[in-house]
Amino acid sequence: MNIHNLIRELREPADTKIVLLVADGLGGLPLEPNGKTELESARTPNLDACVREGVCGLSTPVLPGITPGSGPGHLGLFGYDPLQHRIGRGILEALGINFTVGPRDLAMRGNFCTVDGQGIITDRRAGRPTTERCVAACRKLQEVHFPGVELFVEPVREHRFVVVFRGDNLGDAVNDTDPQQTGHKPLEARGADPASENSARLVNRFVAEARRVLEKDAPTNMVTLRGFSRYPKIDTMQEVYGVRPVAIAVYPMYRGLARLVGMDVPDCGATLADQVETLRKLWNQYDFFFLHYKYTDSTGEDGNFPAKVEMIERLDGELPKIRALNPNVLIVTGDHSTPSKLRSHSWHPVPTLLWARTCRPDAVTEFGESYCLHGGLGQFQAMYLLPLALAHAQRLGKYGA
Amino acid sequence: MNIHNLIRELREPADTKIVLLVADGLGGLPLEPNGKTELESARTPNLDACVREGVCGLSTPVLPGITPGSGPGHLGLFGYDPLQHRIGRGILEALGINFTVGPRDLAMRGNFCTVDGQGIITDRRAGRPTTERCVAACRKLQEVHFPGVELFVEPVREHRFVVVFRGDNLGDAVNDTDPQQTGHKPLEARGADPASENSARLVNRFVAEARRVLEKDAPTNMVTLRGFSRYPKIDTMQEVYGVRPVAIAVYPMYRGLARLVGMDVPDCGATLADQVETLRKLWNQYDFFFLHYKYTDSTGEDGNFPAKVEMIERLDGELPKIRALNPNVLIVTGDHSTPSKLRSHSWHPVPTLLWARTCRPDAVTEFGESYCLHGGLGQFQAMYLLPLALAHAQRLGKYGA
Repeated sequence: MNIHNLIRELREPADTKIVLLVADGLGGLPLEPNGKTELESARTPNLDACVREGVCGLSTPVLPGITPGSGPGHLGLFGYDPLQHRIGRGILEALGINFTVGPRDLAMRGNFCTVDGQGIITDRRAGRPTTERCVAACRKLQEVHFPGVELFVEPVREHRFVVVFRGDNLGDAVNDTDPQQTGHKPLEARGADPASENSARLVNRFVAEARRVLEKDAPTNMVTLRGFSRYPKIDTMQEVYGVRPVAIAVYPMYRGLARLVGMDVPDCGATLADQVETLRKLWNQYDFFFLHYKYTDSTGEDGNFPAKVEMIERLDGELPKIRALNPNVLIVTGDHSTPSKLRSHSWHPVPTLLWARTCRPDAVTEFGESYCLHGGLGQFQAMYLLPLALAHAQRLGKYGA
Repeated sequence: MNIHNLIRELREPADTKIVLLVADGLGGLPLEPNGKTELESARTPNLDACVREGVCGLSTPVLPGITPGSGPGHLGLFGYDPLQHRIGRGILEALGINFTVGPRDLAMRGNFCTVDGQGIITDRRAGRPTTERCVAACRKLQEVHFPGVELFVEPVREHRFVVVFRGDNLGDAVNDTDPQQTGHKPLEARGADPASENSARLVNRFVAEARRVLEKDAPTNMVTLRGFSRYPKIDTMQEVYGVRPVAIAVYPMYRGLARLVGMDVPDCGATLADQVETLRKLWNQYDFFFLHYKYTDSTGEDGNFPAKVEMIERLDGELPKIRALNPNVLIVTGDHSTPSKLRSHSWHPVPTLLWARTCRPDAVTEFGESYCLHGGLGQFQAMYLLPLALAHAQRLGKYGA
């Protein structure tokens, strides 16, 4: 049985509010054996107060050992099985530059590359051009038109750009055209089924046109395309959970992910204080609030342990304003771990706090990975956090009599 | 792989005995932050002695956040996946009044309602008639006969009764006839497939006959029917586990649930002491004993914390008599939590104790939710408790060489 079907069957209307505060990449590692993690090092009196009244645990974003990207990490927190719902790289890249993808779209990532007179790739990244050059080259590609599809070409940065085909009968079972090494021509696109053959034909035509318009522009004189992906079919959070959800997120990719699952995505300013102020203003209009805080991840990716500690402390400082709104359920967690020590996303379980008046208390008194290990939520799959939130918000009826 | 298929493959005969003592709704919540739950508040020297020699944990009846009814709660404890095996509301209602349903039965819940001269419902519960009146009205309905089906009408209480159609080709994909609000006529029954169309035709005929025989009996002058459900196809515990199972339960619904999975269900008296005495008498005839104790749930539903504590202490008082029988495996758990604080079933994990000579000891020394959190069973799905019991009872061989 699919848990979404179960929730549709059991859900009940309620006048309750849930806040899901995602500190991106929250989980960490100590730098030294027997040391503390970033979260354990941070002074977090407000989070700790929540912890004492709530219940803690460690969430596994996908499966043990699996390091999630932002897409699966967030889908899990939104209650979607990240192994069942896959968001392709092309779509994610498009979301990341704030391009509004829709159900008729096939998105793909593009690289400018350099080819010689025989069409053989001599540099897969075209010498890493400036972003200005990338923008100019994309402008040329934007002039390409041919029947059967509406075409969008958008720069990302350096050699990277996004292409979106909008039309019908566009399959995404198409191979990457990047041969992954120099000394080879770009690969021809082929489709694995009739709809994807249609896409492949259009892809090959687009690549041929690109070759023509960029011919004199070495080193950015050719393109490769990869990560072909259709707009995913995902039921919205309204449809599945019966909530009115809103995302209060600054960065485009998270705003896009939220839009995919049906959240409204209003402007919310740039700082966490702005975001919390937006939360306050929208409090009466919604009942599910996804608040995304980026800087715990970016400082982790930078390998900057003290900066990540500071970002956690800043988050803690805003917490009283959120609690003052009196949510029925407040969750603080991450979409994955980003230990400064590893300078990257990791597979380590994510410290998670759920506060509600219906929590069975555990003995945890501080927010931190090693404390959460002994929390009442135990170690659990992230996708079950949302059903728990609905239960604590009195939004789920009894299963069976 | 279905775990039942695995167990059928691995099971081995053994002369060992398993006792599954279900304290209904055992799990609870503290009334105050940092307080104790009902179980933690109770003085339970005998359970605690078991805990010190056994292994503890917290079981999730269905999935995190899902509050189970008694049906799914018990099916899980009997080792059946409660999401795969669903027992319809009509069947459960029939079991609850001790009606013996069988494989040719379609069961449904009935409500007496009041209609005006135009057949429009003016009271969906017929003014909540006395149970005596319900019995009298059911007696009239029992006179209804028509070809194609054998008909049973049994009173429950007030406006509620049960109807069972016994026959062939009776599908249960039939809509409820209750329009859920006054000012409307009862809905016509329709079937979603040929067998259910057959049922719907019989349902409409029954409703028309009911209208006729009750015509002058306002306020109980009409009926609505809902919760159409067929007798579920469930392999018995004998077939799957190779045990001879018996239920020692007082209340009809639990006796009925036990019968569904193939347990014998002898009379057992009314008190827990009677039940334990029945257990003793039957000790040589069976090897799996399901002992159901109701009062931990009913006191929880009443919101009576001290009474629930007392019921737990009474249970504890009977434990030495059970242990004196020398079971190989003794499990004490609940089918779900019923915190007095919530006055209802809940989704919170259930404290569970498994005692056997083959337990790997954990550090838990008292029976209680917060102690079980640190037990050797961890947090686990209730449906895995039965395989564990079989293993400790030396009833499961090795998987693979």
